[in-house]
Amino acid sequence: MSDHPLPFPVFDPGWVWLAGAGPGDPGLLTLHAWHGLRSADVVVYDALASAAVLSLAGPGAVLEYAGKRGGRPSPRQPDISRRIIQLARQGKRVLRLKGGDPFVFGRGGEEALSLVAAGVPFRVIPGITAGVGGLAYAGIPVTHRDTNHAVTFLTGHAATGDVPDGLDWPALARGAPVLIVYMAIKHLGTIAARLIAGGRDAAEPVAVVSNASLSTQRILETRLDRCAEDVADASVEPPALVVIGPVVRLRAALDWLGALNGETVLNADPLHSRSLDRTG
Amino acid sequence: MSDHPLPFPVFDPGWVWLAGAGPGDPGLLTLHAWHGLRSADVVVYDALASAAVLSLAGPGAVLEYAGKRGGRPSPRQPDISRRIIQLARQGKRVLRLKGGDPFVFGRGGEEALSLVAAGVPFRVIPGITAGVGGLAYAGIPVTHRDTNHAVTFLTGHAATGDVPDGLDWPALARGAPVLIVYMAIKHLGTIAARLIAGGRDAAEPVAVVSNASLSTQRILETRLDRCAEDVADASVEPPALVVIGPVVRLRAALDWLGALNGETVLNADPLHSRSLDRTG
Repeated sequence: MSDHPLPFPVFDPGWVWLAGAGPGDPGLLTLHAWHGLRSADVVVYDALASAAVLSLAGPGAVLEYAGKRGGRPSPRQPDISRRIIQLARQGKRVLRLKGGDPFVFGRGGEEALSLVAAGVPFRVIPGITAGVGGLAYAGIPVTHRDTNHAVTFLTGHAATGDVPDGLDWPALARGAPVLIVYMAIKHLGTIAARLIAGGRDAAEPVAVVSNASLSTQRILETRLDRCAEDVADASVEPPALVVIGPVVRLRAALDWLGALNGETVLNADPLHSRSLDRTG
Repeated sequence: MSDHPLPFPVFDPGWVWLAGAGPGDPGLLTLHAWHGLRSADVVVYDALASAAVLSLAGPGAVLEYAGKRGGRPSPRQPDISRRIIQLARQGKRVLRLKGGDPFVFGRGGEEALSLVAAGVPFRVIPGITAGVGGLAYAGIPVTHRDTNHAVTFLTGHAATGDVPDGLDWPALARGAPVLIVYMAIKHLGTIAARLIAGGRDAAEPVAVVSNASLSTQRILETRLDRCAEDVADASVEPPALVVIGPVVRLRAALDWLGALNGETVLNADPLHSRSLDRTG
């Protein structure tokens, strides 16, 4: 077993690697991102990059925070891009580390465009997006043969802070049988109401997963018409993912992490059993 | 730099780890999957798990093929599940390695349900799905602030071999501005026609990415009304992903892999430039 599993790409001074940190469990980091963490001079990280992931940075790396966190003023996107360009021009190896995947509601495209405009060379290292990998840790597959041939990922929170406009909610409601909503907590009531108005069943199962893949992971099972109320009652804190659709029922069978912790008796046939109402 | 970056979970005999191999580049393997490969007694792999990824298996591991490949009879899903259960019951550490992510059109849910029914303990290790990470290697972000707050992933090929039924194509056409179609080559003409009939612009940009993230990666840029013809003319072979929507234009700016290879002059503002028709 070698310390160098791969002929890793060389991380040259003056380059930016725009990398995803995955949902939180450092075991979900990619080999490329791990190599980037060990080789970087500076790691510019988001609030969603977990402490466990950052602990893998090399001993000489400077960790620089650039993200939103409750209470503190948050740097604006152009300021972050400017800072990354400045560090690269100083000849640093810059790892820009974002929670999840940089191109899934991560604004990685904007940062990459600013690097192109500034002539700074870069590489993109995809990460496990929480909407797939985080939900797998909750025992919820985003697709399943018997339930859905399509899944839609959407953000509940545009850059303005509002529910995104320009989305055709009735079409989204009738399109994919499974919807995964990122950054959904703030506007969950509005989103659920629009989906129900668009034809979605009010009783449809919903799961709300916060701190996905971390030891603090928490899952609330509810239904579409009362998910916002249940989230408020349970004081669910962001970051949280909301999954709407029949795959939520598979959790009764596939909660492997709960089973590992001795919490769960798995039921091998949840789609054909009487649905249990597991909301508290 | 340690050989053991993490306190990895113990891979016990008689367990199955159901893991994603990512799109192909072994650098996109997760640390958990890498650890699984090095620790497994048997690796039961799909056609979509790349040779480069399999080369990371420990020297004592048996590599067992279970997937479809041109010409050869392919094992049916129940046979694969039965084989994995049999190996686990023999006390092997079984790494079930699937291309991409096991829960994104990977039938991982079915295999996991069969493990639950058989009482075989398992862990799920998500992987980078090709529809996100593979497209990032083609310079295409699946979401971008200026273009889309939603993205739909769908499969072009149901387990029956046909275009999936039960999908509301007009709703899918009007829902998310970006559509990512897995296993799309066989039925691309039908899918494109349904989307155009559902209201999608015939001139909408489309990219077809085959062998995503590997050195054999190939990208065809085309438009919705002629993508099937262009794919046939160019003899694009599966596996290939099809991405439909305005994010395809970002490739003119964000083709970082082409830039690394000296192939591309990046244009920092592709959404506001005259669209170049880059189809051959």
